[in-house]
Amino acid sequence: MRVLAKDIAKAIEGAGEVEVSGWVHRIRELGGITFVILRDRSGLLQLVLSGEDAPAGLAGEEAGAAALALTPESVITARGIPARNEKAVGGVELRVRSLEIISKAEGDLPFQVNGDITKVGLEAILDHRALSLRNPKIRGIFKVQATIIEAFSAYLRDQDFTEIKTSKLVGGGTEGGAELFEVEYFDKKVCLAQSPQIYKQIMVASGLERVFEVAPAYRAEKHDTPRHLNEYVSLDVEMGFIESEKDLIELERGLLSHIFAEVARKNAPELEQWNATVPDAAAVQRAPLIPYDEALKLANGEAAKSRGGGRIFDINPEAERLLCEWAHREQGIALVFVNEFPRRYRPFYAYPRGGPSEEAGEGVTSTMSFDALFRGLEITTGGRRQHDYHALLEVLPKFGLKEADIEGYRVFKYGCPPHGGFAIGCERLTQKILGLANVKEASLFPRDRKRITP
Amino acid sequence: MRVLAKDIAKAIEGAGEVEVSGWVHRIRELGGITFVILRDRSGLLQLVLSGEDAPAGLAGEEAGAAALALTPESVITARGIPARNEKAVGGVELRVRSLEIISKAEGDLPFQVNGDITKVGLEAILDHRALSLRNPKIRGIFKVQATIIEAFSAYLRDQDFTEIKTSKLVGGGTEGGAELFEVEYFDKKVCLAQSPQIYKQIMVASGLERVFEVAPAYRAEKHDTPRHLNEYVSLDVEMGFIESEKDLIELERGLLSHIFAEVARKNAPELEQWNATVPDAAAVQRAPLIPYDEALKLANGEAAKSRGGGRIFDINPEAERLLCEWAHREQGIALVFVNEFPRRYRPFYAYPRGGPSEEAGEGVTSTMSFDALFRGLEITTGGRRQHDYHALLEVLPKFGLKEADIEGYRVFKYGCPPHGGFAIGCERLTQKILGLANVKEASLFPRDRKRITP
Repeated sequence: MRVLAKDIAKAIEGAGEVEVSGWVHRIRELGGITFVILRDRSGLLQLVLSGEDAPAGLAGEEAGAAALALTPESVITARGIPARNEKAVGGVELRVRSLEIISKAEGDLPFQVNGDITKVGLEAILDHRALSLRNPKIRGIFKVQATIIEAFSAYLRDQDFTEIKTSKLVGGGTEGGAELFEVEYFDKKVCLAQSPQIYKQIMVASGLERVFEVAPAYRAEKHDTPRHLNEYVSLDVEMGFIESEKDLIELERGLLSHIFAEVARKNAPELEQWNATVPDAAAVQRAPLIPYDEALKLANGEAAKSRGGGRIFDINPEAERLLCEWAHREQGIALVFVNEFPRRYRPFYAYPRGGPSEEAGEGVTSTMSFDALFRGLEITTGGRRQHDYHALLEVLPKFGLKEADIEGYRVFKYGCPPHGGFAIGCERLTQKILGLANVKEASLFPRDRKRITP
Repeated sequence: MRVLAKDIAKAIEGAGEVEVSGWVHRIRELGGITFVILRDRSGLLQLVLSGEDAPAGLAGEEAGAAALALTPESVITARGIPARNEKAVGGVELRVRSLEIISKAEGDLPFQVNGDITKVGLEAILDHRALSLRNPKIRGIFKVQATIIEAFSAYLRDQDFTEIKTSKLVGGGTEGGAELFEVEYFDKKVCLAQSPQIYKQIMVASGLERVFEVAPAYRAEKHDTPRHLNEYVSLDVEMGFIESEKDLIELERGLLSHIFAEVARKNAPELEQWNATVPDAAAVQRAPLIPYDEALKLANGEAAKSRGGGRIFDINPEAERLLCEWAHREQGIALVFVNEFPRRYRPFYAYPRGGPSEEAGEGVTSTMSFDALFRGLEITTGGRRQHDYHALLEVLPKFGLKEADIEGYRVFKYGCPPHGGFAIGCERLTQKILGLANVKEASLFPRDRKRITP
C-alpha cells in the first residue's frame, strides 16, 4: 500500500516497512551514502540508499544510484523503514530496503527539473509540459488555477446560480467576423464561439435566471502579446433582474473576494513560491469604481506625472496599468472597476445608460457596461444587456447589422427580464495573482498563431 | 427588495408589502377574480389580481388580466400582501396592489410552456430552448446535469485529483481521422479534440498524478441516433500508479455512488417529475464486472431467450441493453462493467492484459480496458494505458501508425508511471438517470449533422 511523501511522518509510529512511489527529483552522494530525493504529488521525501538498511547488493562499494543506474526523473517505487532525520526535508527519511525502477527517464532532459526554472525559457517550458510541471513552482500555477475554478463555481452555486454547458460551435459571429475560427462541420461552415454570450442570455430568459459556465472560448486575433491567448478558459456569469452594471460589480467583488480567500487558504505554499499575495475582502470592497471619462482623465494625469505627458485616448494597456497603480497608491489594492463605457466601444447589446428612451434620440453616449482591471490588466468585461427585442432592432443599423444577424435574440420576444453578466479570463486572473510575466504561462497548452502543439 | 416564490411563506410574518418578479405561468379568471400563477427560478406563486387589494383601476368590472393586457410568459413585477390560502400552490398567495409588465411576451408562442411538454416534439423543444426550459420538467434535466458535474468534481477533488483545462485545438488525430472536425487555424489546419486523452496522460506524467477535466469533446460521426451527439461534455479522469483497470472501476463505483447520492439529495423534485430513481451505493457495489468474452456469451444467451436466437458478435447497443437487463434481474441494478476488451476493439495505447512481454508475441488477445453500461447504454470507456514508450512503438504497425503519429507520447521517455483513466459522457449519464428517450434532450444546444442552431 503506497504512502504519500507528506504522510511518511505519520508512518513512523507504525514501525513497519512502507512503500513510496514517485519521481527521482535529485541524487546525491555524500560520505559514501547515496541520497535520493523522491518527489510525488504531495511533496518531497529523502530516501537513503546505503547504510545498514540498504537494498541487497547495494552495501559497501556498490552502494548508490550508479549501481542501480538511477537517472533523474525516473519513476521508482521504494520500500523501507521511515525514520526521523532533522536534516532531511520534512524531518523524515526513508531507509530503503528495496527499490524498483518503474519507468526509466532516458537520455538528456531538455532542462533540469529540479533547478532554477526561471532560467528556462518560456518556449521550452511550454514545449515540455510533462517536464516543466514537475518543477513545484510551475506546478503551483495550475494548483492555483484549479482553486480559482473551484472557488468561482462554489461561490456562484451558493448564490443560486446554475452551471450550464453550451455549444462552442456556432453560426457566424455578430461581434466581428474577422476574429472567428472557422470549422468544417459536415457540409457547412460554422465558427468556434468567442463567448457563450447569447447562450447565457437565453438561459436567463429561460427562467434559470442565474447561470454560470466554465468553458473554452476562442479569439482568432493575430497579435501575439503577453496578454493574449487564441484559446482561453472563460469564467462566465449571467444574471437576471438586475438594475444596472453596479449589481454585477457587487457580485464580482464578492466573487473575487471568495476566490482570493480560497487561494490564500489552499495555496499558501504556491503563493510563497511566487512571492505573491492576494488582496483581502476589505481591500476588494475599497477597489474604486470610476466612470470611463473620469478614468481616462485620471490615466492621462498619471501619464503626465510618470512620463511628462502624452495623450491616452482610450483605456489601453498603459491606462490599465496606470489606473491600477493609482488605485494601489490610493486604496492599497491594484483593482479598479471602470463603468459607463461609451457606446462606440461596446457591442450592440450593451444597455444604454439612459434606458430605452434615450436610445432613439441623440443622447446615448454611454452604456451600463464595465471592465475590471487587476494589477495592470483587464480581467473582466461585462455589463447590463438590452433585453427588449425592439430596442435591439433600433440600434442595429449603428453597428452595420440587420435583424437576420441577431436571430438568436428573437427569443426575447417571449418575455425576458432585465439582465447582464460578465466574464473573467481564467488565465489572466491566474497570471495576475501570481505575477507571471506572460499569460501563456497560465495555460497548460496555450495556442497562439504559431503554437498548436503539444 | 425582491422575494422569491419559495420564500413568500416566511414573508407573511413580516406583515408588510413584498415584491416578486418572474414569468406569467398561467392566467385564470374565477368568479370574477383574476389569478395569475407567477413562476420564478425557485417555483410557483399565486397572485390575486382582483378583490379589495387589487391594483388601482383594476377593481370591479375592469379587474383582471385583460385590463392589464397580460399575456402568458410575460415577465412581471408585482407588489402586494402575502396571505395564507390552502388552495394555492404552497399554501400562500400574494394579494397584488401594483403590477408592472417588465417584458411582454408577444404573439403566439410556438407551444404552451405550462402544458404537457411531453406532447411537444423534440425538434420544437430544441429550437426554442428559452421557452422549453421554462417548463419545470425540462428545466429539471439541467438541474440534474448541474448536480452531476458538481458531484463529479467534488468527489475527485476529495480524492486528491487536480482539475485541468486542456486545449481543444489539436493536430491530426491518431484514433481515426475520419471522425475529426477540421478548424482553419490561421494558415494551418487543426482539429477539434475527440478527447483530452493525450493531455490527461501528459498531466499524470507531469507529476500531478491524478487529474480530471470537464470540457467539450467532438466526434464528427455522421450517424444521427438517440445515443449520439457530435459535441458533448466529457467528464474525464486520469490516474497514476494503478495496477489494472480494476483500480479505475473501483474509482468509478465510488464516483457514480457519490453522483447518484447527490442527485437524490439535491434533485428529489426533478427525479419525481421524471418518475426516476437512482441506485444507492450498495447497489453500485453489486454491479457485475464481466470479462468481454463472457459478456458476449451472456448477451447471446439473453438474446436467445428474448428473441429465440440470433448472433451478437460484439458489445453492440442490443448487447448493452441485454446485459443491463440481466444485471438488473440478477443484482437489482442495471449497471455492468465489462473488461478485458479484445485488442482489436481498443486504441493502440490500451495496455495488454499480459503486460509488455506478452505484446511482442502472439499472445495478446485482450487489454486492461473496460466499458461501463448503465440502463442499457455505454456511459464510460476507459482502461489502463501503455506507459512505456518503446512498448508503444512496438504495437504501432498493428494499427497502421508510425512513430511520427504519436509524437505527444515521447514525453513518456522522461519517466511515466503506470496509469489509466476513463471518461463519462455527461449527457448520456443525465439521460439514463432521468430515463430520457434521446440523449439530445440532455444537451442544452445539441449539435448533430443538421442542427447547428440555436
